[in-house]
Amino acid sequence: MAETTYAVADRIATVTLNRPEARNGYTIRMADELGAAMDRADRDEDVRVVVLTGAGKDFCVGADLSQGGFDFDPATGPDAAWQEPAGRCSKRIFTMNKPVIAALQGAAVGAGSTITLPCDYRLASEDSRFGFVFTRRGIYPEGASAWFLPRLVGMGTALDWMISGRVFPAAEALAKGLVHQVFPTGTVLDEAYELARELIANTAPVSVAVTRQLLYRMASADSPFPVHELDSRLIGGLGSNADAVEGVMSFLQKRPPSWSLRVDKDLPDHLPWLDS
Amino acid sequence: MAETTYAVADRIATVTLNRPEARNGYTIRMADELGAAMDRADRDEDVRVVVLTGAGKDFCVGADLSQGGFDFDPATGPDAAWQEPAGRCSKRIFTMNKPVIAALQGAAVGAGSTITLPCDYRLASEDSRFGFVFTRRGIYPEGASAWFLPRLVGMGTALDWMISGRVFPAAEALAKGLVHQVFPTGTVLDEAYELARELIANTAPVSVAVTRQLLYRMASADSPFPVHELDSRLIGGLGSNADAVEGVMSFLQKRPPSWSLRVDKDLPDHLPWLDS
Amino acid sequence: MAETTYAVADRIATVTLNRPEARNGYTIRMADELGAAMDRADRDEDVRVVVLTGAGKDFCVGADLSQGGFDFDPATGPDAAWQEPAGRCSKRIFTMNKPVIAALQGAAVGAGSTITLPCDYRLASEDSRFGFVFTRRGIYPEGASAWFLPRLVGMGTALDWMISGRVFPAAEALAKGLVHQVFPTGTVLDEAYELARELIANTAPVSVAVTRQLLYRMASADSPFPVHELDSRLIGGLGSNADAVEGVMSFLQKRPPSWSLRVDKDLPDHLPWLDS
Repeated sequence: MAETTYAVADRIATVTLNRPEARNGYTIRMADELGAAMDRADRDEDVRVVVLTGAGKDFCVGADLSQGGFDFDPATGPDAAWQEPAGRCSKRIFTMNKPVIAALQGAAVGAGSTITLPCDYRLASEDSRFGFVFTRRGIYPEGASAWFLPRLVGMGTALDWMISGRVFPAAEALAKGLVHQVFPTGTVLDEAYELARELIANTAPVSVAVTRQLLYRMASADSPFPVHELDSRLIGGLGSNADAVEGVMSFLQKRPPSWSLRVDKDLPDHLPWLDS
Repeated sequence: MAETTYAVADRIATVTLNRPEARNGYTIRMADELGAAMDRADRDEDVRVVVLTGAGKDFCVGADLSQGGFDFDPATGPDAAWQEPAGRCSKRIFTMNKPVIAALQGAAVGAGSTITLPCDYRLASEDSRFGFVFTRRGIYPEGASAWFLPRLVGMGTALDWMISGRVFPAAEALAKGLVHQVFPTGTVLDEAYELARELIANTAPVSVAVTRQLLYRMASADSPFPVHELDSRLIGGLGSNADAVEGVMSFLQKRPPSWSLRVDKDLPDHLPWLDS
Repeated sequence: MAETTYAVADRIATVTLNRPEARNGYTIRMADELGAAMDRADRDEDVRVVVLTGAGKDFCVGADLSQGGFDFDPATGPDAAWQEPAGRCSKRIFTMNKPVIAALQGAAVGAGSTITLPCDYRLASEDSRFGFVFTRRGIYPEGASAWFLPRLVGMGTALDWMISGRVFPAAEALAKGLVHQVFPTGTVLDEAYELARELIANTAPVSVAVTRQLLYRMASADSPFPVHELDSRLIGGLGSNADAVEGVMSFLQKRPPSWSLRVDKDLPDHLPWLDS
């Protein structure tokens, strides 16, 4: 039986961790299903935004320790190509052409914290709590969280949370910038849908896809110079761009925009990250 | 007729966007004039600090859509060397040897937000509002803003603002670290001058030039090791440095410093960014 | 006579700047002794955490200007291998395998600010004050602070503090994320020990050593992909790892963990930074 569910309504794909009996403990199978769900949402032109959430009281308590853990023989270890399962999901979200909103409640600990780091938004319930608990389990940070976390909250907070391994509440996550907003318990999924609807109503899908990747791929550039080179190619290519015309016209006419470019066909063809 | 003004008083150059009838809508000509104004301020040893502001109620509402936009034929697009106009200004501010204080009021949207990102200070009026509105216009972020913004406010806030494209008030800009301070409407330019006077009274011009570039050019270094190599060359060269002697003496004698080194003649000769 | 003291109790090494008569003015000798103290703490398996503090009312007022300053002839300048003294300490703390908690009171200015930047925690007294005062002395930032500071507080705050050179109070340091917590004057050292005890009680030493370096060394990676490669090697090697087993078992059995891996013998052998 599946460990996640996938549903589309109103151009929003909802991907739900669905092992509430195990507090959505993270498994290899769940990693595979999350990757497939993100692929599906990214390919489906009807989907504009993804909401990632968990069934039951918790988002995800981290790796399911009861399952033996990993898809390799612990005596020999995995082969060199083996990929740690939280990062399989984190990398797939990182490469998405569509925004991902995490709607978090209860425990979001271990992999339940790390897989949310590449999401565009983390919305939290008042009852949610977070923890990069690896040092308390004798293990190491996963999900490429050492790349994401300092970029979200700064190196001082990242060192505190990662070294202490302590669990902290939604209020601290908000104060430090890990989550974007905190809502009364029980309302976070509705708020995620509200945000998704706003994004869909106002923003052009190709613009969002390019902007999201531009931020992620160019933030490590040595200087603004190569970023401006890419900006210039992108802006210079807008002369005959239907969405750019519609963006101006709808703004001047004070009416909702109606975009025509599609993520599956109309991404600029010179984006450097498309080669990798 | 010029679209900006340039004036020097009390060692402060004031560069003003001066199309209040068009809410300082950004044009190619304005980009050219801003570049020339920054060149002029950087070359003039009498100028210690630049204040960048806008005439009228708004700093800048973004690209002037009424002008047809760009200096190329939209049918063919620009040649490969074409540079997007907001970035022409942003890159020039990035390379300045003197601090730039942005004094912002009313709308600072689109290019009106992005050209302020490389400024050393962004001071805002209570009535000011900001927006990286590109996804709402069917276009892309410009001004190398994908490099600057996450370094100023973290990746989570950068994704929110850039993906949603929403306009947000001064209070949010302050809370997230985009602006340094917010002042009552009508007072921000005076506050910018007050800050400029403090910088001029207390800081050595060559120290400021090197410090500004050190932060910008070394922040992308892979580790602290190459940064410390450069620090060691800079500190090791201070033995016969007149400003370093004056810095110590004025501090010990509790009197205002009187610097003798000049930015146009006395920058250390081994700064790696001077080659680029 | 020594300019620092070193003492170990309860698995905590306390390293104290000990020139209270000179407000712990930083010297070449102090830099050498701090490096030796960190070496000693890092080598001693009995030491889990280092607390760095200062004797008397101040942590450190910066370079001791009364001593003539540097270990080279100012007329000729140092040779090419000379290392600026604040960075000697900063780099050594950067490479530590054990967390360093700075307990700060009174003035932490100049080198007294920069040498704390690579610490895992900066805890401050209400009476503490900070300043990157280099532009006010006609000199340049040292201690590789141009690398550390923007990563801790963002580029906007780093530019403000570094360009203005102004001294600022504990409350501002806390609001901007430079310090983790502020405590009533006179209590910060006790609070540092309390934090150290929590880290020792809860976290595995090898996990902490790897996590600390993972954050520092991978934060500059171009993308999450190489970070996830390393994560996968680390997690994939846990099959027969005694601390990982103990981490799970102690958690399930709700008892304090008892770690067996040692930093001096049991670090994973493929960490890329061990080569450098």
